[in-house]
Amino acid sequence: MGERIKCTIQYDGTLFHGFQIQPNKRTVQGELEKALSRVHKGSKIKTVASGRTDSGVHAKGQVIHFDSILSIPSEGWKQALNTQLPDDIYIIDVKRVSSAFHARYGVSQKEYHYIVLNRPDTDVFNRNYSYHFPYEIDIDKILEACRYLEGTHDFTTLSSAKSTVKGTKVRTIYEANCIRQGDKLTFVFRGSGFLYNMVRIMVSVLLDIGQGRRKPEDIPKMIEKKDRSLAGKTIAPQGLYLWKVTYDDQEEINPS
Amino acid sequence: MGERIKCTIQYDGTLFHGFQIQPNKRTVQGELEKALSRVHKGSKIKTVASGRTDSGVHAKGQVIHFDSILSIPSEGWKQALNTQLPDDIYIIDVKRVSSAFHARYGVSQKEYHYIVLNRPDTDVFNRNYSYHFPYEIDIDKILEACRYLEGTHDFTTLSSAKSTVKGTKVRTIYEANCIRQGDKLTFVFRGSGFLYNMVRIMVSVLLDIGQGRRKPEDIPKMIEKKDRSLAGKTIAPQGLYLWKVTYDDQEEINPS
Repeated sequence: MGERIKCTIQYDGTLFHGFQIQPNKRTVQGELEKALSRVHKGSKIKTVASGRTDSGVHAKGQVIHFDSILSIPSEGWKQALNTQLPDDIYIIDVKRVSSAFHARYGVSQKEYHYIVLNRPDTDVFNRNYSYHFPYEIDIDKILEACRYLEGTHDFTTLSSAKSTVKGTKVRTIYEANCIRQGDKLTFVFRGSGFLYNMVRIMVSVLLDIGQGRRKPEDIPKMIEKKDRSLAGKTIAPQGLYLWKVTYDDQEEINPS
Repeated sequence: MGERIKCTIQYDGTLFHGFQIQPNKRTVQGELEKALSRVHKGSKIKTVASGRTDSGVHAKGQVIHFDSILSIPSEGWKQALNTQLPDDIYIIDVKRVSSAFHARYGVSQKEYHYIVLNRPDTDVFNRNYSYHFPYEIDIDKILEACRYLEGTHDFTTLSSAKSTVKGTKVRTIYEANCIRQGDKLTFVFRGSGFLYNMVRIMVSVLLDIGQGRRKPEDIPKMIEKKDRSLAGKTIAPQGLYLWKVTYDDQEEINPS
């Protein structure tokens, strides 16, 4: 019958064409399935993730599951897979879960962080891991705007027009925040789910507000109009991290 | 007659075959001279650095000088060069100096840092910027050993046998230190100068001592024997940063 395995994964998105497997491109899912295939003596193993991430986007806590006929303790899985994976993907945690666990359908909350380097000079060591914004920012305005993002809204204005989501664009944001530590700004978004490019579009609007190019109270007006063209550009991917995925019940079988 | 220009430079060593220019290889000096040549309408401009760095080694404060017939204010130089440089090199500071300034011969002190990630799990985001050491460490032993490194010694044992230095291998270390912040260890070395691979060999020996595989009091005995084979391996380059270069007098002409 086999077992369902849940993995929590970190990856540096810089050298990947995003998460989702594609022919002739280096993808996170492609590398994961290659490693799994090696562990399973050549058999193809399909992985299911909490969701995709785009080229250049990082993960501190992506979650996937797969089914295996092998019976290996959690620590053994972690070591076997990390040995096979390239050094820009790392499995932090492995759990054996019940077959009711589903990495995509079972998600109850997702948290994304977006990191901005806010100072005149760039930093070569952070060029792939943050967005450089050299202009002065009024963080109080950004925090005021964050309050308008929180709650349940139709996020059509603040997500990609290319979104392939069928049905509602209503989502709930439990937390929208911006934390300054020295010249580093961390935008934090925790919600029921996020539409395509939604975090990157929200950060772009929040930086406009911080710079005084828009006002915090523009947010509810923009949301109400349900018009993507109002929000401006999608900010660069390299500041974005899929930080944490939460599930209602993890139905762990054996925490070995 | 022209002017001598001093630049303080940051670079991410990951994608370079070291600092020194080489045919058909991507080097820091090669990229700097390419940028300078563009600014000088195709004329070749030679750069002199405080010293070389190896493949994979980073710089937070490398210093170079070059001579130019152009008359450009410091801020103008900074902008003109950064516009031409790739995004893994960045000029932090430009000063117009007297022709008595020499980036290599005028060095009075150099400071190197070596960063170690000391925890069981690796970190994909730091794989090119630190060395992963998963074993437990006794930092007091390392600090005890650092005291033996400080001072004026013949560092034959603790530098590469391939060193091309003619003359003495006597150097003075003003400061050898190890700072723990959470799971990050920063080794700091400040001295009159360093021999080839010297910092990477010292860190390797200090980690042996921290792990209990050698004793702090082995250091003076090893130094006395002047035998490179006693010190073991040269640790990986990606944890090493040329942090700061100090000059006795900078003879700045015009701090514009």
